[in-house]
Amino acid sequence: MLSNTRTTRIEWSDCDPAGIVFYPRYFEMFDISTTVMIERALGMRKLHYLKQFGFAGHPLVETRATFRIPTRFGDQVEIATNVIECGRSSFKIEHRLTLDGALAVEGTETRVWVVRHPDDPKRIKAEPLPAEVVAKLTQGAA
Amino acid sequence: MLSNTRTTRIEWSDCDPAGIVFYPRYFEMFDISTTVMIERALGMRKLHYLKQFGFAGHPLVETRATFRIPTRFGDQVEIATNVIECGRSSFKIEHRLTLDGALAVEGTETRVWVVRHPDDPKRIKAEPLPAEVVAKLTQGAA
Amino acid sequence: MLSNTRTTRIEWSDCDPAGIVFYPRYFEMFDISTTVMIERALGMRKLHYLKQFGFAGHPLVETRATFRIPTRFGDQVEIATNVIECGRSSFKIEHRLTLDGALAVEGTETRVWVVRHPDDPKRIKAEPLPAEVVAKLTQGAA
Amino acid sequence: MLSNTRTTRIEWSDCDPAGIVFYPRYFEMFDISTTVMIERALGMRKLHYLKQFGFAGHPLVETRATFRIPTRFGDQVEIATNVIECGRSSFKIEHRLTLDGALAVEGTETRVWVVRHPDDPKRIKAEPLPAEVVAKLTQGAA
Repeated sequence: MLSNTRTTRIEWSDCDPAGIVFYPRYFEMFDISTTVMIERALGMRKLHYLKQFGFAGHPLVETRATFRIPTRFGDQVEIATNVIECGRSSFKIEHRLTLDGALAVEGTETRVWVVRHPDDPKRIKAEPLPAEVVAKLTQGAA
Repeated sequence: MLSNTRTTRIEWSDCDPAGIVFYPRYFEMFDISTTVMIERALGMRKLHYLKQFGFAGHPLVETRATFRIPTRFGDQVEIATNVIECGRSSFKIEHRLTLDGALAVEGTETRVWVVRHPDDPKRIKAEPLPAEVVAKLTQGAA
Repeated sequence: MLSNTRTTRIEWSDCDPAGIVFYPRYFEMFDISTTVMIERALGMRKLHYLKQFGFAGHPLVETRATFRIPTRFGDQVEIATNVIECGRSSFKIEHRLTLDGALAVEGTETRVWVVRHPDDPKRIKAEPLPAEVVAKLTQGAA
Repeated sequence: MLSNTRTTRIEWSDCDPAGIVFYPRYFEMFDISTTVMIERALGMRKLHYLKQFGFAGHPLVETRATFRIPTRFGDQVEIATNVIECGRSSFKIEHRLTLDGALAVEGTETRVWVVRHPDDPKRIKAEPLPAEVVAKLTQGAA
């Protein structure tokens, strides 16, 4: 299945008065990791793949995370991201954020592929993932 | 068990280029809901209850959420928050965010009561919840 | 000229490891204040006035702020917002954020009225403010 | 005078429903640029230089910015940061954010060097910059 690893730095702006990451920021980091992974797989940036597939994004329907070790500003962390399931119109991703090799945060997210509703462009509706996208997300899977 | 409901407004700054709430912002809203609920129960604001109990906060060890209906800037939403479990040094909270009565987002979080580590004030350690706090969190429970 | 005052609460999520508001959050608060003031003047929420005037928003071309007194989580603050200039396609707004009556942050912003570019809907171009909007922004001005 | 240039990427989470950067996020980027520049000059990360100089940070007393060209998610931008003034207890920094060589956002900020108030550790007071810091900030200046 598709995977990608990136490193990022925890910034002052990510941290709260306790001096550690304010946990919603981890979800922002995970969202970036998902985007970066899909961009690499499809060979184009999000702005373009939204156009290419005439779609409205891949919003979450569910997420969860466990927080094991706090991280603080200046920490260099690594985020390993993997597709762990690929359904008809949804896919599931796992993120593992490590600090010096130790697992600090681990989370999963289920996203759905949506397009603009034909009857009302302000609404969105789930749509099967394009075959090309499924192929990329599941690459290397038996 | 302790509960509280508050209303808030989805703002432009909460929304992403798809025009809907960027999901990490829901966790920010839930974090505020938890704080407001505990402040009301203890009768003091967070700045003061952190001092009162000589503690370092109630960071999350786990959270999860499901996203059912997107919300967008200008929407007035209601967030109902409940304590659903209260353990020795941790407690679990549920949030239900509704838009015009319809459940839009539902999430739970498990928080742990932590104090500064006696050997190193930069580290934190879990501590039993004070009896007074347990009494407030479980008020009305049989 | 148009003015509006609202109160808001500084939250844990607005504060940094120094325990005070991380200054970019003041600009988020000011942006909300501008939106709320315009919504009240036009009698509709932003989602609708964007449609009504077929326009793409009122992005900033310039802003400045001075920070006099730090504020911290739990503080109730008041933000007084005024239109101080109204030009052909731009307008200038002042915000004064006070804590217990003392001026904590003061800022101004110049915004421009933009519409989608006729030749390329992805680009935006400045446009004269509609007469109806000018009338509302300058109401009460001699 | 001290300067530093870094590149960063505009992310989905930085952008608003107009599809462009929500302007307070530029101040977050500038804050990171200032930190990175000072960290490089002092040879240690912020967590450590806060301890080293027993100080409470370098909060802003004033900032301003002009926004010339919108940037959007996926854009690679460059931020050039320079110390432009160094006073007794304050210093002024300029940031120039460019997209493909074109100036998109330009801003300045004045920061003050603060320490914990001797009579009340919850309060802060301005303090002369340490000579070592002044030397680093003004390096190369005639």
